[in-house]
Amino acid sequence: MKNPWRKLKGKTIYSGFLGHKVYIDEVVGPSGKKSEYFVVELKDNVVILGLTKDNKVVIEKTWRYPINQEIWELPVGGIEAGEEPLETAKREFEEETGGRSNDWVFLGSHFENDGFCTAKSYVFVAKDVVLGKAENSDENEKIEVELIDFDKLKEMVLNNEIEEVRTKVAVLLYLNGG
Amino acid sequence: MKNPWRKLKGKTIYSGFLGHKVYIDEVVGPSGKKSEYFVVELKDNVVILGLTKDNKVVIEKTWRYPINQEIWELPVGGIEAGEEPLETAKREFEEETGGRSNDWVFLGSHFENDGFCTAKSYVFVAKDVVLGKAENSDENEKIEVELIDFDKLKEMVLNNEIEEVRTKVAVLLYLNGG
Repeated sequence: MKNPWRKLKGKTIYSGFLGHKVYIDEVVGPSGKKSEYFVVELKDNVVILGLTKDNKVVIEKTWRYPINQEIWELPVGGIEAGEEPLETAKREFEEETGGRSNDWVFLGSHFENDGFCTAKSYVFVAKDVVLGKAENSDENEKIEVELIDFDKLKEMVLNNEIEEVRTKVAVLLYLNGG
Repeated sequence: MKNPWRKLKGKTIYSGFLGHKVYIDEVVGPSGKKSEYFVVELKDNVVILGLTKDNKVVIEKTWRYPINQEIWELPVGGIEAGEEPLETAKREFEEETGGRSNDWVFLGSHFENDGFCTAKSYVFVAKDVVLGKAENSDENEKIEVELIDFDKLKEMVLNNEIEEVRTKVAVLLYLNGG
């Protein structure tokens, strides 16, 4: 398929302190008509399914402002410029949970909302995780780190009790041969 | 967990023609300090895994402007005010692909990027799909509808050849007992 989009001009309407930007582009789309396209540029991210020797998953309980509720999520972190996804995964996992592992496996990567957002997410499993003390470097996150049996988490994913897509997809990829 | 966020004030910096809005809120977060929070308010959406009697999946090839590439995706559509997710799924599936089914099953729902976006995604499988003529009501999308064997799509998901998270999670949920 040939690219059916043509950008005529663009303006940045927001630059956030976490590196995200909002653009409004004037485009000619597949219909041939001019329209506006709204794009959020965001860092790519990593998601970590960390498993201890006894098959427990390191999971976080946090309160997400945009959805105004408490939610269970696997650790996630933004990939900094020049970082490889695996480096980010190791760094973020240790910062957020204190966990370390010598056995990392890449499970997959994908765009998260390609209708308006540039970000790609990279999913890893870390096995034989040894827990330590979290640095909690991001003081503006309130995170409670907990351990949950993988089988219990799997059941929660399949029963629709996990409400966050990154956590779901990581568990499902691992379950199907990660 | 008690809500650790307090909104002091907010402003809307963008309202798009598809109903999405961008807010910049001034908040007090878990650290007790003031900061800015960037929120994208977006319609919730539905994702449809449509299967024909001979186990082929109705899939779309499209060019996504924000990521500037061609990509394979399951049909997706925004939930309009007052619509139930299942109604949207039936409507969008028929509009985009011409497909109809009398056998719909809900596979799960989840937030897609709860760090900045409000949207929840609802996943359905439609079985025994009968294909018709697409209305292609949204003239500003260039979509090529194709059929792919479910087993082939499954393989592509597990081999990381599918680059879009909604498609991955729908296939994986179905595969694990949908």
